Amino acid sequence: MRFGRIATPEGMAFAVIDDEATTAKAIAGTPFTPPEYTGKEWPLADVRLLAPMLPSKIVAIGRNYADHVAEVFKQSAEHLPPTLFLKPPTAVIGPEAAIKIPEFATKVEFEGELAMVIGRPCKNVKAADWKSVVCGVTIVNDVSSRDLQFADGQWARAKGIDTFCPLGPWIETDLEKFDFGHTPIKAHLTHDGKTETKQDSNSDQMIMDLGEIIEFITASFTLLPGDVICTGSPAGTAEMVPGDRIEVEIPGIGTLANPVERA
Amino acid sequence: MRFGRIATPEGMAFAVIDDEATTAKAIAGTPFTPPEYTGKEWPLADVRLLAPMLPSKIVAIGRNYADHVAEVFKQSAEHLPPTLFLKPPTAVIGPEAAIKIPEFATKVEFEGELAMVIGRPCKNVKAADWKSVVCGVTIVNDVSSRDLQFADGQWARAKGIDTFCPLGPWIETDLEKFDFGHTPIKAHLTHDGKTETKQDSNSDQMIMDLGEIIEFITASFTLLPGDVICTGSPAGTAEMVPGDRIEVEIPGIGTLANPVERA
Repeated sequence: MRFGRIATPEGMAFAVIDDEATTAKAIAGTPFTPPEYTGKEWPLADVRLLAPMLPSKIVAIGRNYADHVAEVFKQSAEHLPPTLFLKPPTAVIGPEAAIKIPEFATKVEFEGELAMVIGRPCKNVKAADWKSVVCGVTIVNDVSSRDLQFADGQWARAKGIDTFCPLGPWIETDLEKFDFGHTPIKAHLTHDGKTETKQDSNSDQMIMDLGEIIEFITASFTLLPGDVICTGSPAGTAEMVPGDRIEVEIPGIGTLANPVERA
Repeated sequence: MRFGRIATPEGMAFAVIDDEATTAKAIAGTPFTPPEYTGKEWPLADVRLLAPMLPSKIVAIGRNYADHVAEVFKQSAEHLPPTLFLKPPTAVIGPEAAIKIPEFATKVEFEGELAMVIGRPCKNVKAADWKSVVCGVTIVNDVSSRDLQFADGQWARAKGIDTFCPLGPWIETDLEKFDFGHTPIKAHLTHDGKTETKQDSNSDQMIMDLGEIIEFITASFTLLPGDVICTGSPAGTAEMVPGDRIEVEIPGIGTLANPVERA
């Protein structure tokens, strides 16, 4: 089932989006419990999809795809294992909202990623039990200023600037429909009216799989409902400039599309 | 005025703490607006002080004291400028709550710091205007596993483990009573029944002052009411082990004390 968050003439609400992505049916609660429909529904074209969740924290795993480690860090993954970092909740934007690049953030790149949304408070979860704490998956674009990332050493600023965390378009809660060991991830960049597929990878390139990521993080951090886990970017990240449009596509979820503007 | 958050037999509330720290008077709202007293009050000894705020984010500045840069990074501050990092909200604990060290987090050190609490949503604040967005100051202990910090490269895990962000004991909102260019910061470690003053420094050692920190952060991140800004640790950080007790003292605020236990 797909849960989105929508802005309507009557306010904001969580909503169930049908498989054809034509209709949004408002629910009274949240995606964490079975939906209670309010009876209100809209054609999806008549509402605005917001980021599907406002997380209390966004925990990301860096250097989790061997091919991306090689392209960005110029080292092999054996010598540079996965690492955790945090993105601030204020960086989150929804589908079609603009990624706004300030002048000082140079060499800004997209990173298309599969994201997990946490469904219940949890700590010290074993890898095999990860599905018991994850309520669904969505798409995240871990926008990163490469210049700030390497100048600062710590990645919080380079990856945490307002608008640098596009999230959505919705949360897919049917985890059984995915083969998470072989899920394609693509990113298509439109520049000067021409669209190129820049990322064309697969979760089979992940170093830590979804269960290992949950075990690794929850050994240290309590996770809360709504927290978002970014599972790492595959190779093919590239620079975006104002005027571009970036679309991250994961089959079974959909496409997260955002224009790029100057802040 | 001192605002704390208290656990009482009747529930949790924000409260105004008197200057002698003997009485807690519950308020109906938050520390962001002038207090509306509910009429309930307790001797401070009869309630439990909680972390004075549950922040939506904790933004910290690393390498902001030249003496601490030298001791931890073995380099001069000129070659290693201040950097931003984030601590997760789930790391926050209040006064007298235990810092709990898991087995894998080795060489865990205290870092006593002055913290600012944000009072209103803000972005792109000029240094000179910092007091217009800060509702008060408190004390933070930026607990850090030095081994994880350097092994991971990114500091999120080493500094973000549950309980690794003691905060309090309360928020002092009278900013005019401080000379923030010359504020003493001390940390006293009790080990095997013997107390030693390990940190004995002063904010005059800061590289970026409070206004510059606010300008630097808000150029990138929107800050929200309740967000906590950790302004950096001076020299003298040292290891804590289970059984120890750590007290961070800043005159004009008070003392933030926490026992250390094995998780």
